[in-house]
Amino acid sequence: MSKPCVDFWFDFASTYSYPACMRAQALRDEAGVAIRYRPFLLGPVFKAQGWATSPFNIYEAKGRYMWRDLERLCAELSIPFRRPDPFPQNSLLAARAAIASEGDSWHDAFCKAVFRVQFGEGRSIEDPVVIEAVLHDIGAPARLVLERAQSDPVKLKLRSETEEAGRLGIFGAPSFVTADGELFWGNDRLESALAWARRTA
Amino acid sequence: MSKPCVDFWFDFASTYSYPACMRAQALRDEAGVAIRYRPFLLGPVFKAQGWATSPFNIYEAKGRYMWRDLERLCAELSIPFRRPDPFPQNSLLAARAAIASEGDSWHDAFCKAVFRVQFGEGRSIEDPVVIEAVLHDIGAPARLVLERAQSDPVKLKLRSETEEAGRLGIFGAPSFVTADGELFWGNDRLESALAWARRTA
Repeated sequence: MSKPCVDFWFDFASTYSYPACMRAQALRDEAGVAIRYRPFLLGPVFKAQGWATSPFNIYEAKGRYMWRDLERLCAELSIPFRRPDPFPQNSLLAARAAIASEGDSWHDAFCKAVFRVQFGEGRSIEDPVVIEAVLHDIGAPARLVLERAQSDPVKLKLRSETEEAGRLGIFGAPSFVTADGELFWGNDRLESALAWARRTA
Repeated sequence: MSKPCVDFWFDFASTYSYPACMRAQALRDEAGVAIRYRPFLLGPVFKAQGWATSPFNIYEAKGRYMWRDLERLCAELSIPFRRPDPFPQNSLLAARAAIASEGDSWHDAFCKAVFRVQFGEGRSIEDPVVIEAVLHDIGAPARLVLERAQSDPVKLKLRSETEEAGRLGIFGAPSFVTADGELFWGNDRLESALAWARRTA
C-alpha cells in the first residue's frame, strides 16, 4: 500500500509558506505521510476576493503583524529571515520552473531553495538570474529547466492548477489538502493535515 | 513579585475566541502566567478595514473553511460546537456585562459561559434573557450586573477599550498582548504569548 499523501498548495510569494516548506520534510518523515508540492498563483485567487495585491499590503495592521510574527517564527525555527523587496514578489517564473521540474529528483529541493533565497536572504525571485543560480546550485540543468518553464504545456498546467486551487476552496497559502478533500489553511495547520491524512488513510 | 500577565483581547462574537477562552485557564495555570480578559468590539476595527460585517461573511471560501476548521478544533478539544444564527451575534450587551463584572469573582466564569452558550449551544447572546440566565447560572447578581452594564462608565469603558485595541495594532480576535507590547493573533498563538510573557517577565 502506498503512503497517505497531503497536497501542499503554495504560491512562492506567500510568506507563511516559507516556514511551512522548511518544516515539511522532517514532519512528513515523522508522520509517515508523503507531501506533494502543488505550486499555484495566489493573484487570481486574491482578485476573486476583490484584492489587487496581498491582503498584507492592503490591511496595514495585519501586514505589520505578519512581518513581526514571521520574524518570531523564523527565530524559533532557527531559519534565516530577510524581507524581500518588493513584496509580494512576482512568482510566475519560479512557479513555472517548479512545474517544469515535476517528477525530477531536484523538484522538492528547488521549491525549498526558492523560499530560502527569497525569505532567508531577501533576494528577488522575479529575477531569472536568481532562479537560474538556484537551479544550478541544487545540481539541476538550469538552462533546460528555464526553457521548459516557458513552454505551453507548463504555462497551461500552472493555469489549471490555479483553477483547481479555487475549486478546492483554497483562498490563501499555504493550504494543505488530504486525499479525502479536507482543507487545512496556514503553516500552523501542517501538523493537523498530516495527522488527518494518517488517520484516514 | 507578581506573575507575568497576558492580556486576552476578544469580541464575544469572535469564533476562534471560543476555543481560546475554553483553553485559557489550563494553559495559564500550566505556564504560571496570569490572563486578563479584555473584551472589546470588533465592529469598529473591521469598519476601519472597510468591512461592514465579519470577513467570514464577506469572503465566502474563507468563511466556509472557518466553520469546518472550528468544528474540527472543537471535536479535538472535546468541547461542544453549534453555530449561532445569525452570525456574527451582536455582542454589545455581553461585552458591557463583562466590563460591569470586572474585579468580581464571577468575571472569568461569565466570559467562559457566554462563549459556551453561544458556540457550544448555538444560543443568541443578543437576547438579554440569555445573558441574564448565564449570570444567574454562575451565581452572579444578574439584575444588578445588567443594570450596571447600561451605566455610562461601563459604556465609556467599552468604547475606550475598543480604541485601545486599535492603538495596540489589534485587527482581529482573539489577540494576546504581553506586558512588553508583543502582539499575538489567533487561538493558535495563545501558547506562544504565554511562553513569551514567561520568558520576558
